[in-house]
Amino acid sequence: MSAINRQFLLARRPEGRLRESDFDYREAPVPAPGPGEVLTRTLYLSIDPANRVWMFPDPTYRPPIEPGEVMAGFTLNEVVDSRDARFRPGDLVECDGGWQDYAVLPGDALHELEPRKPLSHWMSVLGVTGKTAYFGMLEVGRVRAGETVLVSAAAGAVGSFAGQIAKLHGCRVIGIAGGPEKCRWLTEELGFDAAIDYQSGNLSERLAACCPEGVDVYFDNVGGAVFQAALFRMKTHGRIVCCGCVSILDTETPPPRLLGVPGLLPIRRLRLEGFIVMDFYGRRRQAEQALAGWVAEGRLKVREDIIDGLENAPRALMGLLHGANIGKRMIRVAPEPSVRG
Amino acid sequence: MSAINRQFLLARRPEGRLRESDFDYREAPVPAPGPGEVLTRTLYLSIDPANRVWMFPDPTYRPPIEPGEVMAGFTLNEVVDSRDARFRPGDLVECDGGWQDYAVLPGDALHELEPRKPLSHWMSVLGVTGKTAYFGMLEVGRVRAGETVLVSAAAGAVGSFAGQIAKLHGCRVIGIAGGPEKCRWLTEELGFDAAIDYQSGNLSERLAACCPEGVDVYFDNVGGAVFQAALFRMKTHGRIVCCGCVSILDTETPPPRLLGVPGLLPIRRLRLEGFIVMDFYGRRRQAEQALAGWVAEGRLKVREDIIDGLENAPRALMGLLHGANIGKRMIRVAPEPSVRG
Repeated sequence: MSAINRQFLLARRPEGRLRESDFDYREAPVPAPGPGEVLTRTLYLSIDPANRVWMFPDPTYRPPIEPGEVMAGFTLNEVVDSRDARFRPGDLVECDGGWQDYAVLPGDALHELEPRKPLSHWMSVLGVTGKTAYFGMLEVGRVRAGETVLVSAAAGAVGSFAGQIAKLHGCRVIGIAGGPEKCRWLTEELGFDAAIDYQSGNLSERLAACCPEGVDVYFDNVGGAVFQAALFRMKTHGRIVCCGCVSILDTETPPPRLLGVPGLLPIRRLRLEGFIVMDFYGRRRQAEQALAGWVAEGRLKVREDIIDGLENAPRALMGLLHGANIGKRMIRVAPEPSVRG
Repeated sequence: MSAINRQFLLARRPEGRLRESDFDYREAPVPAPGPGEVLTRTLYLSIDPANRVWMFPDPTYRPPIEPGEVMAGFTLNEVVDSRDARFRPGDLVECDGGWQDYAVLPGDALHELEPRKPLSHWMSVLGVTGKTAYFGMLEVGRVRAGETVLVSAAAGAVGSFAGQIAKLHGCRVIGIAGGPEKCRWLTEELGFDAAIDYQSGNLSERLAACCPEGVDVYFDNVGGAVFQAALFRMKTHGRIVCCGCVSILDTETPPPRLLGVPGLLPIRRLRLEGFIVMDFYGRRRQAEQALAGWVAEGRLKVREDIIDGLENAPRALMGLLHGANIGKRMIRVAPEPSVRG
């Protein structure tokens, strides 16, 4: 066991592309655990796009990493010394151990793992990566057999599992990745139905060729231009699983609000959902009865903006588009007939 | 009954802002119904932002209106003459009757309505408008009592009902509208908790002041800058109901792909949903068992990109952000310990 704790700290908030000088390296003494704390030794450190997200000044699902703090990261650690009765030396734990050899953490921040060969599976297929692919594809994307599923960063950690999980569930799966080696791996080794190399251009055309009927589920890991191209290939009632936006995280000239759509969606777990009323027409009577009841009870007010004469229709529409109406605008084309008894 | 059928036709696809010259006016003979068809007379013509959407060349949930065709629009019509046994003169029907005095339509395209006073309620609170507000707020937005709900174009037809429906369900409701008259109507007549006049600037600041804890449900009728400002006020697990995008429909310089986010969402009823795996951690064992089972069966392949040495962490992250990895990247910080039995 080395007697020092090697650590990487965030030296400063990156401006533009991340550089090595944005990190400080330090050798510190191995810390001692206090009451209820556990000293752990890092075995594996996960490297994820989320690491870059945490460097921005905005809080996400965790506070931002401040300059001078140890760089944060998911780790697989071995317990070395414990002052929490639930843990003893040799136990394996998953935690937010950071970029260092040793971490002292409260027992409540550790998730115990069973020993397993190879241990690295707790970082990949069984770790945050595999579980992200599993819940994202099955619970958020709700894929069904026969659907067409598109995955970006498909040769990356989450993407390669996400696509395989969709295949396991009877979907047709197309992966987007950078370069022929990655694309070959997807189709020849992982059983993807097709792979598109986004680096060779014409992404939209090749998407249209691969998915002529459109896409049911797009599992988005990248955001940016690939997200845009996929958006226009979606089928009616398609679902986009917003998992990440690596394409816009680390650029020389980041967009002014880096984390809009789709970047803010995973951070806040937002759902944006489009609808038109015709989808609910089988239940129209339910709505009509509820609405008419609220009107009769005086709980819902109706303001109508009635303009007489078909000849006013173009002006009425043009005004509506720029906010001229209050309440519901309509044209009275003919007087109301006497209602038949 | 006038002997002519006044009609407005789409003269040409609008370029930039809609003009009266984009329409042609024509007087045509009143048509006669064929077998299975019904001659109807228009009583009310609904004026909706959707009318403008249908003028674009792209198909939406209906084919685009072609130049030379009668302008499309939802109407409330009275049956004049019928060759479908289900309808007789005097019946009231809701249909896509268009901008004209008389329409001949197949019986299957008519929805019969009961007589009701005033008839105009079938165009407003009980029509497409009210039902859009009803299903959008309750089924898509799934509002719950105590939530904070934000509505844009809140003095418009759909928005004014949507906000009132949220109030009826125990929500705190803030409306965004243009001008003091509309804002006064929302708070003084409709019972909205607050109203923000987007025309008086500083929308983001006033949103923050009105919704200090953030927004649970944003019912978006406008898209554009208001959508952006609302997006950044959303709470974790917030829902954005994408109902329309009137702010970007009719502009001198429309964006290159007018109907991206959020415009394409209602047209294709897309769902974009962000997530992080921690939300599912209560079910982590389920995922681990399924994933490990698929690996054991050889149905899920695991490619790990293991880099030795903590000293390589910064470079490993920088490479990952630009696609250097295939499969799951991690740092091996220490050799695997002998697993405890």
